[in-house]
Amino acid sequence: MTRKRINVGLIGLGTVGGGVARLLLEQQRRLSDYLGAELTLARAADRDPALAQGLDLPAGVLVADGAAVVADPQVDIVVELIGGLEPARAFVLAAIAGGKHVATANKALLAHHGREIFLAARQKGVGVAFEASVGGGIPLIRSLREGLAANDISHCLGILNGTCNFILSKMTAEGAAYADVLAQAQQEGYAEADPTFDVAGTDTAHKLAIIAALVTGRQPELNDISTEGITKIAPLDIQLAGEFGFKVKLLAVLRKVGQAVELRVHPTLVPLGHPMASVDGPFNALFVEGDWVGEVLLYGRGAGRRPTASAVVGDVLDLARDVLCGCPGRVPPLGSAAEPEGPLALAPLDQTVCKYYFRFAAQDKPGVLAAISAVLAEHRISIEAVIQKGREEAGPVPIVMLTHEANEAAVQRALARINALPFIAEDTMFIRVAG
Amino acid sequence: MTRKRINVGLIGLGTVGGGVARLLLEQQRRLSDYLGAELTLARAADRDPALAQGLDLPAGVLVADGAAVVADPQVDIVVELIGGLEPARAFVLAAIAGGKHVATANKALLAHHGREIFLAARQKGVGVAFEASVGGGIPLIRSLREGLAANDISHCLGILNGTCNFILSKMTAEGAAYADVLAQAQQEGYAEADPTFDVAGTDTAHKLAIIAALVTGRQPELNDISTEGITKIAPLDIQLAGEFGFKVKLLAVLRKVGQAVELRVHPTLVPLGHPMASVDGPFNALFVEGDWVGEVLLYGRGAGRRPTASAVVGDVLDLARDVLCGCPGRVPPLGSAAEPEGPLALAPLDQTVCKYYFRFAAQDKPGVLAAISAVLAEHRISIEAVIQKGREEAGPVPIVMLTHEANEAAVQRALARINALPFIAEDTMFIRVAG
Repeated sequence: MTRKRINVGLIGLGTVGGGVARLLLEQQRRLSDYLGAELTLARAADRDPALAQGLDLPAGVLVADGAAVVADPQVDIVVELIGGLEPARAFVLAAIAGGKHVATANKALLAHHGREIFLAARQKGVGVAFEASVGGGIPLIRSLREGLAANDISHCLGILNGTCNFILSKMTAEGAAYADVLAQAQQEGYAEADPTFDVAGTDTAHKLAIIAALVTGRQPELNDISTEGITKIAPLDIQLAGEFGFKVKLLAVLRKVGQAVELRVHPTLVPLGHPMASVDGPFNALFVEGDWVGEVLLYGRGAGRRPTASAVVGDVLDLARDVLCGCPGRVPPLGSAAEPEGPLALAPLDQTVCKYYFRFAAQDKPGVLAAISAVLAEHRISIEAVIQKGREEAGPVPIVMLTHEANEAAVQRALARINALPFIAEDTMFIRVAG
Repeated sequence: MTRKRINVGLIGLGTVGGGVARLLLEQQRRLSDYLGAELTLARAADRDPALAQGLDLPAGVLVADGAAVVADPQVDIVVELIGGLEPARAFVLAAIAGGKHVATANKALLAHHGREIFLAARQKGVGVAFEASVGGGIPLIRSLREGLAANDISHCLGILNGTCNFILSKMTAEGAAYADVLAQAQQEGYAEADPTFDVAGTDTAHKLAIIAALVTGRQPELNDISTEGITKIAPLDIQLAGEFGFKVKLLAVLRKVGQAVELRVHPTLVPLGHPMASVDGPFNALFVEGDWVGEVLLYGRGAGRRPTASAVVGDVLDLARDVLCGCPGRVPPLGSAAEPEGPLALAPLDQTVCKYYFRFAAQDKPGVLAAISAVLAEHRISIEAVIQKGREEAGPVPIVMLTHEANEAAVQRALARINALPFIAEDTMFIRVAG
């Protein structure tokens, strides 16, 4: 009996695309046995034909460009791994329009154009899978979209950018400065030559947008996600956070507050006992709180050729099974069959309530602590702990505080006042604390 | 437009069953919107009719017994939550024979009769889902069966019994004795009146059997899983393990060795830096290593009414979607469409190679350490570290060693020899070390 065949068309043969090609070719037997059909890499393309060399693509697989992959009537599933917005968007929409199913690792594409792509897929009745877009090999999209579907998810915390976590972990372990660790990360391949996209938090915000869409059913506007990166974090902050019992992590935060949702990306003090505090180095994790499941943590390698290829091919197997079972588009892109009405209601950042870490750079004079404390008290910000370090060198002395829960707007007003005080030498460093 | 209806029949209204009934009733709207069809608790039964009181079951839902649920032609999906082997097995097989889909949390049933149940389901073309059977609310079955399907999984470590982990965590935190902590756990509802099933490792072995079936495609014989419980662990072992940099955990271990698989359940020293070391209290976790994904950890509440109901209802939504899409039995019970030939080849325990922790109870005489060391050397067991505690009270003195990697058979022979030495007061305590 000849088995049915599912043909995969691959656009992009870079780090991840090359990994997917290898996995499909090397494990063709295992994957086909699992599926009960021949899973075949039928077409592949990349703008840079040199990337195909070394992949040992069978004759006839390499085609001129992505458009040729998308247009090929034999292709059942298009895997988009070129990244960026265009031409990725055009390829994905063309594939959907042609009745093909799509797997993608492209978080920027989904964060910007998810609504359009998901709507097109639903209208056409095809599947769109994107496990590899967030958290590399960790099966977290599948868990949010299906496994935890019985829950109202009220709270997510994500460590979703390997570059930032690598840098912060290394700064923590070695007491080293941001710039030095960044340079080392660039040498070791953990950071891009231009790291802005990662270290400014943009990549994490893209991933948070995808998680928010899964949790709420609504795609947020990227501009509405308050985003801060890690470039201002000093070794001193990491050291002092440690003395208070915290690690500094770049977190993606989703928190439902009544009918609205807070979405923010910023450096955060995470208590050492929290499971997210031990997610170090290039690892990623998503922490989820649901009304029935309670706390769940999903942890693994968030990037890299092999983990990301694992997620992409997991999606391909899923899409292929839907084709074989005659139920294409079985799972709606965001899990729910319902289309929620109206846009996502976002809670503005200035209504956030959390604890704060402040590091004041003050001239070492009598009355400084009293003056700072008075401004904080005026804004109803109460102090849980203070560390005042002795002067070790010339220059301002750090005064470090951990507050009780306070309102972001009040904090911003208080810090503006404090930063204007004559004995304050630099703008105050503040970091939000995970509850 | 009237939506389609999916009728759920629930057998068992105990802790988990009552939770599932509540979740289906309270969240009927949310779950139905997610599914795009009316998800209805149509029938429910329990041998103890008192359990139905307080659940506010709609009129007509409560029926006489499980047989009435299974026989009802209106029921699409049977949820089996009575636990134990019979009549659970009979109900599940009757449901399958009647073309109904099945969700179950019954790990004992699947560990004993999984082969029979899965075969029946495949032949009938119905779905069997069992996310709740291992790890409570953690979406780990789904991850092994689908999300990580592109991988050859070589190694799993599981903390899968909340009672054992609660007891060991409390012994670690408080330096308390096993019996005292067990009594407290029983008072607080974390341990059964007869805790044997949990503390002897049997429950963990059942769960490991299910994981092994998913990873290898073959159901192991329960008798082939080498199983040790936690009852012999002394506070002194936990304290000394801590001095060596380890925590003591009851682990389920799966390790592929060539063509064979090691399956074992035993107390294990886990290095403090390993992500499994911070899984404390009633939490469960599964650590997975795959050839493409690398390391993945899935963590959450492993038991309890609400987390387990979350997993059961996640499965019900999945099965319901298959019914609605006309693709019942879409995912084979163990994921793979292939039926591997022949039984699972198990690597015998005595071929295991790992590091060991030994605690010798010796009389405090000159030459004792030399004599012990000589026997170990004769069996090619080399020592990485030794702690010899001074005598604090009358009686034997503990000598504690951490070995380099050694072979289990050699260790057993050496310990038999050492235990027979005249100055050894008790059988030597040994604990395997996670690599």
